[in-house]
Amino acid sequence: MSQAAIQPIAPIRPVPLDRAYRLLNHGPTVLVSAEHDGHANVMAAAWAMPLDFAPPKVAVVVDKATFTRGLIEASSRFVLNLPCAAQAALTLGVGSDSARTRPDKLAAHGVQLFSPADETLPLVAGCVGWLACRVLPEPHNQQAYDLFLGEVTAAWADARVFCDGRWHFDDAPAELRTLHYVAGGQFYATGASVVVPGAA
Amino acid sequence: MSQAAIQPIAPIRPVPLDRAYRLLNHGPTVLVSAEHDGHANVMAAAWAMPLDFAPPKVAVVVDKATFTRGLIEASSRFVLNLPCAAQAALTLGVGSDSARTRPDKLAAHGVQLFSPADETLPLVAGCVGWLACRVLPEPHNQQAYDLFLGEVTAAWADARVFCDGRWHFDDAPAELRTLHYVAGGQFYATGASVVVPGAA
Repeated sequence: MSQAAIQPIAPIRPVPLDRAYRLLNHGPTVLVSAEHDGHANVMAAAWAMPLDFAPPKVAVVVDKATFTRGLIEASSRFVLNLPCAAQAALTLGVGSDSARTRPDKLAAHGVQLFSPADETLPLVAGCVGWLACRVLPEPHNQQAYDLFLGEVTAAWADARVFCDGRWHFDDAPAELRTLHYVAGGQFYATGASVVVPGAA
Repeated sequence: MSQAAIQPIAPIRPVPLDRAYRLLNHGPTVLVSAEHDGHANVMAAAWAMPLDFAPPKVAVVVDKATFTRGLIEASSRFVLNLPCAAQAALTLGVGSDSARTRPDKLAAHGVQLFSPADETLPLVAGCVGWLACRVLPEPHNQQAYDLFLGEVTAAWADARVFCDGRWHFDDAPAELRTLHYVAGGQFYATGASVVVPGAA
């Protein structure tokens, strides 16, 4: 498959499946990646959310016009990658260009892919969380709403910002915070922790 | 219906429907409110996202155990209210207690409801955005995944933080920022603006 054999330097650790929803619970914008028959691609999606705790499931909207959608439909697999603030331009870039019209899209926006051990899925290097998913076939949702449901089969996170089943953004560099897209090239980073006194 | 006749002091303005998705695009945690036959209720939901631009649609997960779900199913209407940081305890409270076991739940957590002109839906006072929705009936999604799809029929926002079709958190008090729930009583507030240079 068309992915660079890079060695990510971040401390990437598996996330137990019963904690995987917490990667997505705060509503970050994701990069959707998929691979089929030697072709890999990455697109941006602000419309993604958890759908269940155990087994963990997710929902994501993938437009019919995207090249990535064809890869998902052909392989029945996809990855939700969580980009960080350092990757805002990359995220906007892969969300604006299509591999249909710009075949060098990934290289143009500095996207490097890697696969964890025992996986063949393409993960985006430099992200801070990854959810490997298997499509739960729901043809009506896919056709009528561009809505894909998936079961999470494995998850990983950058231990500098997610460990022991929790995000720890307050203790990490600001460029490792996740992103929340609005419109027109503008994101908000995940912000200050708000803890309700007395909560467990 | 069981809602206080309060006069909200915030500058609440209608949001054009073609900009309504931007209220939800950055993935905030929402309060889901609904009313039927004189009963209103409010629950918290971290699993909500836009589903389409125009007409605007949304998706939200509403567990079968919730009292609010019955109101949604009976009325085919619901509201996604966007709580702000000042409402973190309220949000956690209505997300933890059920009106099934605590009938005074709304009063106990300081929830006040109001309805805009020409609407009968219950909106939560003190929130910074509201999306009034009509259920798009999808019985399979509702039963199998607790997943409700809705078309947005009207939207409003607190003009101190959302105007001209954009969030303006950087210019407003921090307690008006939206919330992103993680787990265990912990939220992240919507954080710093990240603008990609050269983007439109």
